[in-house]
Amino acid sequence: MKLTALPCLTLLFPASAFAAGAASSPAGENLLWLALILMSARLFAPLAQRVGFPAVLGELLLGVVLGNLSLLGISFFSGVTQDPIIAFIAEMGVLILLLQIGLETQLKDLVAVGPRALAVGVIGIVMPFMLGAWIVGPWLLPGKDVNAYLFLGATLSATSVGITGRVFRDMGKLDLPAARIVLGAAVIDDVLGLVILAVVSSLVTIGTVSTSAVGLILAKALLFLGGSIGIGRLIAPWMSHSLARLDAGPSMLFAQVLSTALALSWLAHVMGLAPIIGAFAAGLLFEPVFLQKFEHPTIVRDIEAVLPAQSSADLSANSSANETDLVTRIKAVLVKHTGHQHENLIEPIGYFFVPVFFVLTGMQVDLQTLANPAVLIVGLGVTAAAVIGKLMAGLAAGREAGGWLVGWGMVPRGEVGLIFAMTGRQLGVMSEAMFSVIVIMVILTTLITPPVLSYLLKSHAQRHPFGRRS
Amino acid sequence: MKLTALPCLTLLFPASAFAAGAASSPAGENLLWLALILMSARLFAPLAQRVGFPAVLGELLLGVVLGNLSLLGISFFSGVTQDPIIAFIAEMGVLILLLQIGLETQLKDLVAVGPRALAVGVIGIVMPFMLGAWIVGPWLLPGKDVNAYLFLGATLSATSVGITGRVFRDMGKLDLPAARIVLGAAVIDDVLGLVILAVVSSLVTIGTVSTSAVGLILAKALLFLGGSIGIGRLIAPWMSHSLARLDAGPSMLFAQVLSTALALSWLAHVMGLAPIIGAFAAGLLFEPVFLQKFEHPTIVRDIEAVLPAQSSADLSANSSANETDLVTRIKAVLVKHTGHQHENLIEPIGYFFVPVFFVLTGMQVDLQTLANPAVLIVGLGVTAAAVIGKLMAGLAAGREAGGWLVGWGMVPRGEVGLIFAMTGRQLGVMSEAMFSVIVIMVILTTLITPPVLSYLLKSHAQRHPFGRRS
Repeated sequence: MKLTALPCLTLLFPASAFAAGAASSPAGENLLWLALILMSARLFAPLAQRVGFPAVLGELLLGVVLGNLSLLGISFFSGVTQDPIIAFIAEMGVLILLLQIGLETQLKDLVAVGPRALAVGVIGIVMPFMLGAWIVGPWLLPGKDVNAYLFLGATLSATSVGITGRVFRDMGKLDLPAARIVLGAAVIDDVLGLVILAVVSSLVTIGTVSTSAVGLILAKALLFLGGSIGIGRLIAPWMSHSLARLDAGPSMLFAQVLSTALALSWLAHVMGLAPIIGAFAAGLLFEPVFLQKFEHPTIVRDIEAVLPAQSSADLSANSSANETDLVTRIKAVLVKHTGHQHENLIEPIGYFFVPVFFVLTGMQVDLQTLANPAVLIVGLGVTAAAVIGKLMAGLAAGREAGGWLVGWGMVPRGEVGLIFAMTGRQLGVMSEAMFSVIVIMVILTTLITPPVLSYLLKSHAQRHPFGRRS
Repeated sequence: MKLTALPCLTLLFPASAFAAGAASSPAGENLLWLALILMSARLFAPLAQRVGFPAVLGELLLGVVLGNLSLLGISFFSGVTQDPIIAFIAEMGVLILLLQIGLETQLKDLVAVGPRALAVGVIGIVMPFMLGAWIVGPWLLPGKDVNAYLFLGATLSATSVGITGRVFRDMGKLDLPAARIVLGAAVIDDVLGLVILAVVSSLVTIGTVSTSAVGLILAKALLFLGGSIGIGRLIAPWMSHSLARLDAGPSMLFAQVLSTALALSWLAHVMGLAPIIGAFAAGLLFEPVFLQKFEHPTIVRDIEAVLPAQSSADLSANSSANETDLVTRIKAVLVKHTGHQHENLIEPIGYFFVPVFFVLTGMQVDLQTLANPAVLIVGLGVTAAAVIGKLMAGLAAGREAGGWLVGWGMVPRGEVGLIFAMTGRQLGVMSEAMFSVIVIMVILTTLITPPVLSYLLKSHAQRHPFGRRS
């Protein structure tokens, strides 16, 4: 056995004598952190729901509390946000969330809202960019370089889909047209965001824009999206069929879905896109019909075993009309559930990974940023522009499809806006003060959106009590 | 937001510009590695089963192949065994496996075999130690220091329970007395192993043994085992009841079970024990009866909704004898499945984590170790002693309880034996040649055991076709 593998082994059989050979990461502490994050997320979520907030806000606020315990002198959680293992678990969390959302989204429904999603995506990039670069920037932060305003605009144009996807999913509203428009627009914005970032960075560093560089970004993005979904949809039914012939158990079904998601996330990453786009694309590949050959879960098999076989003439003669009716109803339940077996299998793995992502997102909020009143006021102004820009995009979706929902769905900037701002700072165009303003904008857009969306979805349900309107 | 969190963020929105700020670990590559490990493990397992081998051997051999691809000049997987994130995923894998085994084991059944497990554990430590230190060592590796033989003996006394637990679980044989004896003996051996290692290390370094040091190890181990299981069994029903009142959904049940396992794994680690002992103890805490208050899975709820309510006089009048009979049988199926809801929820998370552990274990096998014929022959001799020592311990379990099964169940040395040898090398008492011999012994005991156990379990089932004999 190779000795290089010891980081793994030392945890299995720890003895202080081996500390020297062990990995530097405190793997033991990670276990406790994960236990605490997992359990407290599950305790905060129902508490948030009791006061009418969505579960994800509970997880985010828990993160804010844990991440700022150091202000009270409690440093136990300080290492969490810097730990690469916890960071990877969190990344897996948002990948699995987007996989789940993809599995629950039909490709044809997404294509149906394509034009509107494109309009929302483009307007949702252009309007916040213009508001930031030409209006709010020069007005609220006067006297800066034009490049700084360009970067502020780029930051405001970002979209982070995790929060919105989670709220729609938790409330069982992924089949609303508004949800599909937001998802489609988020994919488009990921590509356009790369273009904006490349253009602005290029303007700042070499003063000009290379058409071929922008063309390459677009070509790689289109190649990935077209290739993964186009080829994937051709391969998926055949692959499912072959794998089910080799072993039709649930673990094979699980491995097929999850490893496709991991592989496409990696491919998206390699092609310059966000890995979550790959996970979402993987979810779109699998439709229940491809997976029919896989065995039912044991409970379904066991219930089927006690149901009378309808083909047997002997049993039919004995069974009453009532019983046949009952059998029909039970079979309908079984069919409904077995069609979504792959979603049920992914669900528990989401229970583990997904809360880590949202708690860690909350932990990245540094409350000290909010302590400077001057910065806070400018931050509120920039936040208003960030919200207004996306709400204008939402109007392009049309009022009937839930324009407000779409607009608010695009509001969270999350990690994407922050990374844009980081680039600006690395390139030396963005001052510390402007960076703090952007951090406030990211915090507020991320924390405000879940309760607003939750309110809009509830009132939307009251206005449209009979289901979706497309 | 704190900037220190960027390792997490850069993967979510990668752009080469941020490479400088990103974590050094290739998180993107991890996604592809996990996808490949997960999918190929699921392909190898049924192939192994087709030729009559247990699935775990397929995963181990897959690991051997992947880990030695560098001999063919393919270096893609060379980084896997050194990656701390993959190592953590593998650790989680063995923790979840032992949690599952704990959940499927009743504490009272384990207590019932306690005396026999103690006998097997003690003999299984003493016999291989004596064989190694006084017979095989001086005979096959003459001319070494007496301390080197002591370390060889300590290494031979190690027990690694993961492989055996997996084989018993995959074959649905965890309820055999032999399985419970092996599990109990493995817990005892983990404690005794710590004692042996402390004693031998102390003899080598200061030439004497400190009774208080040994006492402290034993006290901490007993405190952990007694405390976690004793207090845990008192708290678990009350905790389950309170949590179910707050939120009776499956995600709460899942969080309760998994975070208990993670927290006890951490506690075991802190107390000097192997984390897997903590995960196993956590599994012993939960009995289906504590978890009754949690909601059924949706499929159970939906089926119950279509069943006629037996209390309703109206329906009872209409229902035939046949239907009542059918309803009774279906309800029996539902009761059977809902009792094990917590196990079903943990199952899919095992699909992800567990194969990573076994593939990574296989990857640590360096085939070049087997290339030196002289070392290989000595290695075979030491392996024979390692097997014989544990088989003698198995005889203490009694023939009727499956003495051969118990003995072979204790044979794999896995990571535990290797860490003992590492300590000896660090202390300077163990030569490179002796270390290579031990690596061969670890490889062989780990790879031989799954097929032997699988064969013994099949023939045991033929001799005892009517279930368990205690």
